[in-house]
Amino acid sequence: MTARESILKKRDGKTLTASEINFFIHAYLRGEIADYQMSALLMAIYFQGMSFDETVTLTRIMRDSGEVVDFSHLPGIKVDKHSTGGVGDKVSLILAPLVAAAGVYVPMISGRGLGHTGGTLDKLESIPGFKTQLPLSRFKKQVEEIGACLIGQTDEICPADRRIYAMRDATATVQSIPLICGSILSKKLAEGSNALALDVKVGNGAIFKDAETAEELATHLIRIATAFNLNTVALLTDMSQPLGGAAGNWVEVCEAIDVLQGRGPADTRKVTLALGAIMLQLAGKTGDLPSGTAQLRALLDNGAAWEKFLEIVRAQEGDITFLENPDKYPAPKHRLEVKAEREGFITAINAREIGRLSMLLGAGRKTVDDTVDYTAGMLIHKKISDRVHRGEALITLQNSGPPPDNDFIQTAQSCFVIAHQSLPPPKFLQKLLNAQGVQPITEIELMAGI
Amino acid sequence: MTARESILKKRDGKTLTASEINFFIHAYLRGEIADYQMSALLMAIYFQGMSFDETVTLTRIMRDSGEVVDFSHLPGIKVDKHSTGGVGDKVSLILAPLVAAAGVYVPMISGRGLGHTGGTLDKLESIPGFKTQLPLSRFKKQVEEIGACLIGQTDEICPADRRIYAMRDATATVQSIPLICGSILSKKLAEGSNALALDVKVGNGAIFKDAETAEELATHLIRIATAFNLNTVALLTDMSQPLGGAAGNWVEVCEAIDVLQGRGPADTRKVTLALGAIMLQLAGKTGDLPSGTAQLRALLDNGAAWEKFLEIVRAQEGDITFLENPDKYPAPKHRLEVKAEREGFITAINAREIGRLSMLLGAGRKTVDDTVDYTAGMLIHKKISDRVHRGEALITLQNSGPPPDNDFIQTAQSCFVIAHQSLPPPKFLQKLLNAQGVQPITEIELMAGI
Repeated sequence: MTARESILKKRDGKTLTASEINFFIHAYLRGEIADYQMSALLMAIYFQGMSFDETVTLTRIMRDSGEVVDFSHLPGIKVDKHSTGGVGDKVSLILAPLVAAAGVYVPMISGRGLGHTGGTLDKLESIPGFKTQLPLSRFKKQVEEIGACLIGQTDEICPADRRIYAMRDATATVQSIPLICGSILSKKLAEGSNALALDVKVGNGAIFKDAETAEELATHLIRIATAFNLNTVALLTDMSQPLGGAAGNWVEVCEAIDVLQGRGPADTRKVTLALGAIMLQLAGKTGDLPSGTAQLRALLDNGAAWEKFLEIVRAQEGDITFLENPDKYPAPKHRLEVKAEREGFITAINAREIGRLSMLLGAGRKTVDDTVDYTAGMLIHKKISDRVHRGEALITLQNSGPPPDNDFIQTAQSCFVIAHQSLPPPKFLQKLLNAQGVQPITEIELMAGI
Repeated sequence: MTARESILKKRDGKTLTASEINFFIHAYLRGEIADYQMSALLMAIYFQGMSFDETVTLTRIMRDSGEVVDFSHLPGIKVDKHSTGGVGDKVSLILAPLVAAAGVYVPMISGRGLGHTGGTLDKLESIPGFKTQLPLSRFKKQVEEIGACLIGQTDEICPADRRIYAMRDATATVQSIPLICGSILSKKLAEGSNALALDVKVGNGAIFKDAETAEELATHLIRIATAFNLNTVALLTDMSQPLGGAAGNWVEVCEAIDVLQGRGPADTRKVTLALGAIMLQLAGKTGDLPSGTAQLRALLDNGAAWEKFLEIVRAQEGDITFLENPDKYPAPKHRLEVKAEREGFITAINAREIGRLSMLLGAGRKTVDDTVDYTAGMLIHKKISDRVHRGEALITLQNSGPPPDNDFIQTAQSCFVIAHQSLPPPKFLQKLLNAQGVQPITEIELMAGI
């Protein structure tokens, strides 16, 4: 059994045995299989897929490549949330303290920004002093004591995933359902969660643009998670435009503060409450979703979620005076409004390009070694179905590096389609899936408690 | 334009522009694109193919990545021959001196053994002292003075192909028609040939087992070659059993000596004369193939080809006393006959496995760093349609490393299918293709002069 033979087998559409997958990954980690063989296998998997059994094996081997956290000494069901990635998605920052404030343990291992999508870690690190690279021992202690901890993947957790993921990004093999399942679930299983709420994004700013593939991904994630007794519910939500009113790092923290203090944009609030209610239900803290959202809304309104957020940030060495007084934060050197050139209604937004432009402004990394400009990002003033006047601001670009030039501004402008006829806003909460399949739940029922 | 974007584009079945291919290969050679990105692109090309224009661009860029030899100061058309690789294929060793003896310049850059197929360079290097790694200046001088030179790919010639090929072997991306075209033709164009005779092998010991894909490969090779004014003719020949009576290194040199002295197995002679006649026709030295084969047979019979071979070997520092007296060569430490366990007729031979076993005996390399045992190989006593008695030798295994064990011998035995009913031998010279398409030529017509 050589690396070449396994690649050949997968290339020809055959099924790899557990021992072949095991050998490939471990030999790779030991340096006996080269990066270029791993990337060839990943591309072959992209084209030929993996069976259910192969995906379960991959997930298990990646989980077991590092430490597996055990929270069984803590009472109740530990629940995490994962988003497949979007533009302006700051929901994890709000959900972790919110659900912890409701008495549920939330161990959360998050990722960095990648391509056009932002990363929870970069957003958290825009808070001066905030540490996301904590040893697992401290992660465990903080979950025990405060109820939530938000860290990055350490070398101790799923090193196989860490190395493979970095390669997938550089080789255009991210969009593979079995590889996504293995990557997401291995980490969630290793961090000690018993249940998982998934936010599977759909639309041009998401990993999969079409609803069918997004639903297929959700279904596979649930099937694989179920094989590991990780109780998983997936919510399909719209990503045909950025979420909320900000995309970047510090600007998103500010929006998270707004929501945690009972304010904030309707869509960010809505998806936060919906996912939070799912997490409460998974943890057995609510019988139905509407009463879950009601419970969470109360925690936003009475300051409990906000207090929990401050507690988490303090525990992770963040300077909470910047949260209490965001004006204290360094202002971006450049602020520039991108204006509408005509009157009409916004009928489409290129969310993927908005995300890419935000990255180029400095909010993300072009390569792994780039440093992030935490002041960089965008304020989004107009969303689909909004009326816009000629000369009115669509978005505000801001950063502290070289200011955006005219080309950049024109590209930003072209992300907004303005038409004479208005369109209704896209359906936002699209589908709810669990191990039993698609659940008959309408947006209104789900949000009854909001 | 980033590496990732080009991989993505090809992954999604789109066509890369000339500047994208150019950037990718040159950035790769400069070390700015990683091996793992190149291998991911190669696997994407394996699945999505390349258009005619893409393949021409790839070939041109690989040719121009190193020095391009110019023989235009020499009179006449320079002709090379290339085989897509088989088991026991020693034809290049015979053809180069034979065609040079007919007054045609033959600049020949060959490869090493790979997987189950042997390599011309390894065979030549089994001649004590023979040098295949010569600087291009010496290559040019020898072609000028002697009419033929057989060397390996140096760093000066097609470095892009050299690096990419090594990776393809390790990542199961060898069997891709556009990649094969680029690899073969870039070298032939760089070595200064104006015309090319291709031996495209068909059958279980060949790169493509089925006649359809082999013909597709031949057609593509001719189309791409024509775009560069490299006049190319392809002969499809059977590789459902090893060629001739020997597979290995020194054992194949001995068979080449036999043919060069006017003897040797019928199939080796036949394919040599057929390809040689094609080369003479390409060089304008014969009007039709039958008179070309007659001309070449005379050069085998009158010793001219043999003298040219000695001249080439002497020029490349080989010790010709071993050629003049092969008994002087070190005998293999082990010699073992694999015998038929039943009586009947040979109806099939697993040529690929025969090749692999020969490699395992020491005639080839499992990894790039392995050293070759020049005494290792096989003598093949029985071919398809031959009658065999119980206990009669099918093949003789020989080597100087650890002797083959019982498992090995059983595997070797199982390469021969013995049945009660005899089958006719496989059609050996299958098809002749040139830029005008498949040519209506029968084996008999082609071989009329033999």
